[in-house]
Amino acid sequence: MTILDGKKVSNDIKNEIAAEVQKMKDNGEKVPHLAAVIVGEDGASLTYVGSKVRSCERVGFESTMICLPHTTSEEELLRKIKELNENDDIDGFIIQLPLPPQIDTQKVLMAVDPSKDVDGFHPENFGKLALDMSTFIPATPFGILELLARYKVETKGKHTVVIGRSHIVGRPMSILMSRKGWPGDSTVTLTHSNTKDIAQITSQADIIISALGVPNFLTAEMVKDDVVIIDVGITRVPDDSSPKGYVITGDVDFENVSKKASFITPVPGGVGPMTIAMLLKNTLLARVQRKI
Amino acid sequence: MTILDGKKVSNDIKNEIAAEVQKMKDNGEKVPHLAAVIVGEDGASLTYVGSKVRSCERVGFESTMICLPHTTSEEELLRKIKELNENDDIDGFIIQLPLPPQIDTQKVLMAVDPSKDVDGFHPENFGKLALDMSTFIPATPFGILELLARYKVETKGKHTVVIGRSHIVGRPMSILMSRKGWPGDSTVTLTHSNTKDIAQITSQADIIISALGVPNFLTAEMVKDDVVIIDVGITRVPDDSSPKGYVITGDVDFENVSKKASFITPVPGGVGPMTIAMLLKNTLLARVQRKI
Repeated sequence: MTILDGKKVSNDIKNEIAAEVQKMKDNGEKVPHLAAVIVGEDGASLTYVGSKVRSCERVGFESTMICLPHTTSEEELLRKIKELNENDDIDGFIIQLPLPPQIDTQKVLMAVDPSKDVDGFHPENFGKLALDMSTFIPATPFGILELLARYKVETKGKHTVVIGRSHIVGRPMSILMSRKGWPGDSTVTLTHSNTKDIAQITSQADIIISALGVPNFLTAEMVKDDVVIIDVGITRVPDDSSPKGYVITGDVDFENVSKKASFITPVPGGVGPMTIAMLLKNTLLARVQRKI
Repeated sequence: MTILDGKKVSNDIKNEIAAEVQKMKDNGEKVPHLAAVIVGEDGASLTYVGSKVRSCERVGFESTMICLPHTTSEEELLRKIKELNENDDIDGFIIQLPLPPQIDTQKVLMAVDPSKDVDGFHPENFGKLALDMSTFIPATPFGILELLARYKVETKGKHTVVIGRSHIVGRPMSILMSRKGWPGDSTVTLTHSNTKDIAQITSQADIIISALGVPNFLTAEMVKDDVVIIDVGITRVPDDSSPKGYVITGDVDFENVSKKASFITPVPGGVGPMTIAMLLKNTLLARVQRKI
């Protein structure tokens, strides 16, 4: 059994990006610049965005954090997005979700210039992904592909079962794993809340990607020997013995499933750390494409 | 066993659209106007486009057929598309495929204004489809959804197996059948040329949508009792006993599979006739949306 070590791989990727940025600097070129917009004072959002900004610093990117009050109107946010679209110094930007209720999230995401949409949430970029065109792949699916690639996990002709049909993980993963090329060329089954007898389906899977958010949902009885497990679930489970009062728990009963698996991601330290690395990679890509 | 009669349903839809158009005329409103661009003199393409134009006439739409020589450059075609994008009289238009080799198809499809893209081939529209937003659904998948809806075929919680991952049928069908709502909410498996042991997968399916183009590929041994069969295959098989010298044959061994099926589309007369009806429906939708 091999652990798919997202902490290590994301570190490697950040080092590679830092080396690229150093080359840009040495050549006197502009370095990538990521902006992050946050509306309101949600604690988790501030933590996420703060961590993205710190990662930018680490690899040598410029970064700008734009904090707007929770009372910001949709119109004001759209005006800010227009500014960022037109600002030649910004290569890519993200709008941290969730947004306050007075703002239509869909309208906001549609307003981002697709060439700066490093989250890959604009329908044009999502459509390109589904139509096998080059685009910004959303960070979590991109991170999963990268983990599979770095550990040379065979996917061609394998049966991949995806659990959950969310726009940011399940749906794009189901498409990416069935695309031509590697990692891809899998037979893919997408399961969700209406799926009957899920154990019967997971027990046929060569690869399982679970993005459900139900702690320890996937048990050893539901998988076959040598299965590859990608656990995208991140749930805080109360735990008095932990100093924080909770532990981060995945969708997979790691202790027992790992005994049957050929590859498995731990939680935490698997898919989670990959997402920021892939956001940085998309921002680097945005910079390079804008130079052409 | 019930035949999913595409000929009848497409006729019903055309009659419904004609009634809508008559209402528009009675109210003194502009009627929908579809333009079709064809490059070169490919016989099959001319037949398809001619049939689309005749259908427009039948339901009371205005239509324009633009025939460009096979020597047309990419630049000339892009200029024509710009004209159509800007022409307020045109509600929707299509570029008949395939295009001659000197023209980059992807570039051309990207140039169509998404609000006039009644074929639903622009990545922005495809992305909206995948993100559960309102959009133009490509004609063949839209026709399949409509057949399932009109015959009240239950899809929720069913296992749908899609054969073939093409951009115009297999990929969008796999997404649409797994979306929330009806027809949808299926557990969906997408299979393709790299799938191993396809019979083992199809024999578990409640619904099979085959878009492979291999005559009589799906046999009775590969399906379970009461399966729902949607056959998108259209292959010309040489046949001396036919006046045309060929017969149109689907992916499904109809004679034997129909004995086990609960619902089945014939070929011809199943999915085929639905596509033009749904193109008209998208054009009507384009007209209505442009008025808002």
